Amino acid sequence: MSENEAEIDLVGNRRPATIRDVAAHAGVSKSVVSRVLRDEPNVSAERRARVRDAMAELGYRPNTIARGLSESRSGTVGVVINDLRNPWYVSLLEGLATTFDAVDIAPLLVDSRLDHQVGRDTVETLLSRQVDGLVVVGTTDARVDVERAAQSIPVVLAGTLEPDLPTVDIAVDDDRVGARLATEHLLTLGHRRLGHIQGPGMVGRLRREGFEETIAAAGAADECVVEYGGTTEEGGYAATVRLLDSSSPPSAILAFNDMASLGAMSAADDRGLSIPRDLSLIGYDDTQLASLRHISLTSVDNGNFTVGAQAAKFLLRRMGRLDAPQQIYRHTPQLVVRRTTAEPR
Amino acid sequence: MSENEAEIDLVGNRRPATIRDVAAHAGVSKSVVSRVLRDEPNVSAERRARVRDAMAELGYRPNTIARGLSESRSGTVGVVINDLRNPWYVSLLEGLATTFDAVDIAPLLVDSRLDHQVGRDTVETLLSRQVDGLVVVGTTDARVDVERAAQSIPVVLAGTLEPDLPTVDIAVDDDRVGARLATEHLLTLGHRRLGHIQGPGMVGRLRREGFEETIAAAGAADECVVEYGGTTEEGGYAATVRLLDSSSPPSAILAFNDMASLGAMSAADDRGLSIPRDLSLIGYDDTQLASLRHISLTSVDNGNFTVGAQAAKFLLRRMGRLDAPQQIYRHTPQLVVRRTTAEPR
Repeated sequence: MSENEAEIDLVGNRRPATIRDVAAHAGVSKSVVSRVLRDEPNVSAERRARVRDAMAELGYRPNTIARGLSESRSGTVGVVINDLRNPWYVSLLEGLATTFDAVDIAPLLVDSRLDHQVGRDTVETLLSRQVDGLVVVGTTDARVDVERAAQSIPVVLAGTLEPDLPTVDIAVDDDRVGARLATEHLLTLGHRRLGHIQGPGMVGRLRREGFEETIAAAGAADECVVEYGGTTEEGGYAATVRLLDSSSPPSAILAFNDMASLGAMSAADDRGLSIPRDLSLIGYDDTQLASLRHISLTSVDNGNFTVGAQAAKFLLRRMGRLDAPQQIYRHTPQLVVRRTTAEPR
Repeated sequence: MSENEAEIDLVGNRRPATIRDVAAHAGVSKSVVSRVLRDEPNVSAERRARVRDAMAELGYRPNTIARGLSESRSGTVGVVINDLRNPWYVSLLEGLATTFDAVDIAPLLVDSRLDHQVGRDTVETLLSRQVDGLVVVGTTDARVDVERAAQSIPVVLAGTLEPDLPTVDIAVDDDRVGARLATEHLLTLGHRRLGHIQGPGMVGRLRREGFEETIAAAGAADECVVEYGGTTEEGGYAATVRLLDSSSPPSAILAFNDMASLGAMSAADDRGLSIPRDLSLIGYDDTQLASLRHISLTSVDNGNFTVGAQAAKFLLRRMGRLDAPQQIYRHTPQLVVRRTTAEPR
């Protein structure tokens, strides 16, 4: 983090009239309102009058951000998602889209894994489409490109801490706290041999540290093993096999995320271990996979909707001043207990 | 379907040099090559010469489609996905993106469910971003808007048959065949009481018809029940409960898709029924969910990568001639047998 980082909160003001309200009141589409705001010629005099009346009646005033945006080239923001197959980003995207919609910005999604497959430079593709800003969702391989982009357009990170730059804002959950909540739950249930499946990047490191620090602070665990497993089902499977093969196999595992947990479930199945009777398991991200009744995975809810909404707000602010000091929002996560955790046998 | 529909095949020609090849050969980015092709001024004489040399050496010739595209306004195609939470579209998107990439087009993804939540008109949003065409992925609520868009820009449907218009191409799997393959598998295993969870739209109707026709043709089933369940886990759960509550509960179920199958699994769990010992289950779409070891769902692979690639090709052709007659590609699906189907007890 840069030294001048500022922890800020979501501000819950009452909502002033938006472009959408004006459009509904005037009985026209939002793009007609935008065109009137920009004084574009292709709107009939009659509709123009209706929109202006609606603005007056609702007391609509385009704010600084919206005024700035209306002069921008595309009204589009690039959203870089690392891998569409891992559904952790869905709520985050909802938070982003809802906030951007209020100022009539459309998110342009790209999948950087997919781009990598076809040999396309994700960030350059977005820049050549003249996006007004960039949201990087999750830990990405395109770190260098993101750094380059941040020199010319506003960039924020959502759900990742990298690349950490003085003019790139960050909205993220507090991964150390999330891992602590999960680990405390396992200790409280009576588990003494704990395993962790570590994930990549700074987020992976913070979750691991939360796990290890909690065990150290409680002074309660006999054994605590960490295996690197990455973000995928396959990685979670392989790491769990290694944990279960260790000299003192754990009775409970905290996985890096829900996808890796699905791999852990399969590894337990293959060993004839029943979850939670023989092995307790906790995921992270609280995806829709975790809440599927058939899976019912205890997981850490990292507040992705809120994180996405805050990332969008950061980007809108940065559109007004590209070199503003870095702002960081850290959401406090919550543990959602489902059916994969129980007392040890 | 319109009467002049043409069933066509993918053509497997050897690959001519692409913009990407030229870029790699000249040691510049693809966008530099595009700029040289468009004769834009902002490229140095030295790079321009390098790109022209690379084109000559590789025998690169911009084809009709690429020439047409280079005059287009955005180099962007709108991709309307109905619900990002259902991951069936992931391979389809990979097929689309790979084909579009060859002619330097970037897909702009939008989630129409999300747009609906924030009250945004998906199609209008894309049109106002001046996309060069529209791919509608899966059955959508925005049918009227798609019809309107088709009057001004090229539109293709991928994985859905609606809205069926004379100038809208369709790439889809053969749903009737897919349902037949699944139903034949259940009959061959010895099941005689079969249930089907129906989904929405024409795709839902064709899968149901494939199910019912196969049973009728075999003359083998004692009982065959259909319940409407939609596309979601919740819908699949509710429909399965109704099927299991019927006077003659089925020993095997064909669900509309994999998501509904997950609901069926949960309903079976709640009744204390073991899959496949007490109940066989088949999904549709062969999503990554189906192949998760912990789920291991028998499912119909509808060739989504190929369907996506073909949809992209249709759109590129239609960019050359907006009023060309409708073309339809029907992929022949395959059954992928996993661990949720077995002989009845």
